[in-house]
Amino acid sequence: MEGKLYGVGIGPGDPELLTLKAVRLMKESDIIFVPGTSPKETVAYQITVQAVPELAEKEVIAIPMPMSKDLRLLEETHERGAQTVAQYLREGKTCAFLTLGDPTVYSTYIYIHKKILERGLEAEIVSGIPSFCAVAAKMGISLTEKAEELHVIPAIYQIEEGMEQKGTKVFMKVGKRSQKLRQLLQEKNAKAVMIENCGMPGERIFSSLEEFPDEVGYYSLVIAKEGN
Amino acid sequence: MEGKLYGVGIGPGDPELLTLKAVRLMKESDIIFVPGTSPKETVAYQITVQAVPELAEKEVIAIPMPMSKDLRLLEETHERGAQTVAQYLREGKTCAFLTLGDPTVYSTYIYIHKKILERGLEAEIVSGIPSFCAVAAKMGISLTEKAEELHVIPAIYQIEEGMEQKGTKVFMKVGKRSQKLRQLLQEKNAKAVMIENCGMPGERIFSSLEEFPDEVGYYSLVIAKEGN
Repeated sequence: MEGKLYGVGIGPGDPELLTLKAVRLMKESDIIFVPGTSPKETVAYQITVQAVPELAEKEVIAIPMPMSKDLRLLEETHERGAQTVAQYLREGKTCAFLTLGDPTVYSTYIYIHKKILERGLEAEIVSGIPSFCAVAAKMGISLTEKAEELHVIPAIYQIEEGMEQKGTKVFMKVGKRSQKLRQLLQEKNAKAVMIENCGMPGERIFSSLEEFPDEVGYYSLVIAKEGN
Repeated sequence: MEGKLYGVGIGPGDPELLTLKAVRLMKESDIIFVPGTSPKETVAYQITVQAVPELAEKEVIAIPMPMSKDLRLLEETHERGAQTVAQYLREGKTCAFLTLGDPTVYSTYIYIHKKILERGLEAEIVSGIPSFCAVAAKMGISLTEKAEELHVIPAIYQIEEGMEQKGTKVFMKVGKRSQKLRQLLQEKNAKAVMIENCGMPGERIFSSLEEFPDEVGYYSLVIAKEGN
């Protein structure tokens, strides 16, 4: 009988933000897949092993998932990843593929998921805490109240048009766009906070627009609210 | 010494989607607050007691949180709720206030949170899985990929202007707007799914726009993707 794949969201970095379901599935799985190249050095492994020490005894396999806008490179990488995962599923193994945050929000897991289903194999998505919820919690602010809308915008692609949205704006993967984002938000008289590497080593918090540096790491996230 | 309040997101309904932190804080708390009127009949209690049986032995206190657009009624209700919570904090009690989904996304907890901080007392937000992530996981679809934006729109307030957004649209609290929403999405040639009472008793899934009934319950959520 073929095995089943679970795409497990492990949340934003704090091991205590793992769900009970994520912990159970990691314990029950024969194989743990993590995005990266060196299994036990990946961020996903280092977060989860703190809550699930049993992982240290499991077969942990790294699946390369480069960050790239090169669609052909991405497709090749995902295809190779899916082949590896499918092979274990066909051997009847229960597999957990760990992914930071939530698997449905800008995760690379979703491409593996689709390719596994296309092969007629079974796969299930298991929700994790998305980074923007964790950042709002850490800053003690709400994302949305009453009639407010929430807009989540990948900053590496577009920020100018996102600027026109009403309600709360979340810019993800800020990186090199930090300076431009600060400038545009200042023109809008917005209030904003930024966190780099939320819940992970190297976390930095910038509580106001004025504090935003010109450049930050890829895993930086801005929450912007309309000015008064 | 004064106690501390934890605003604990309990996720969308499945007790296994509680985080480890939520479980620990419920076990450690002296007092458990739940939104509603009859403590052990509230949705929050009935979800969490399945994962944390110790709750049955705790002091569980219901805080009325009516759904209303009457701002004055809401303000009075939140003020009374905050007074009750503050009283226990001043007695040195550790308190957990349970809230469905995530406390930063359209939760009523956030008003209690602000009022507790205003009184100089300590409060912390603990993230939970937001309903839209759980729905996407259940339907096996992504919310956002690559450059896609995500727009979360409270359907009880506005749907017409939300219709113009690019990327993925999540309409929350659909209720009586179901028929109008179906019509507008059909005009846009969008693809959409709806879940009523996700992860709770009475869950119903509508896998395509054509299946959307004219009216659904308040806890209904639509995920709409741009048509081709």
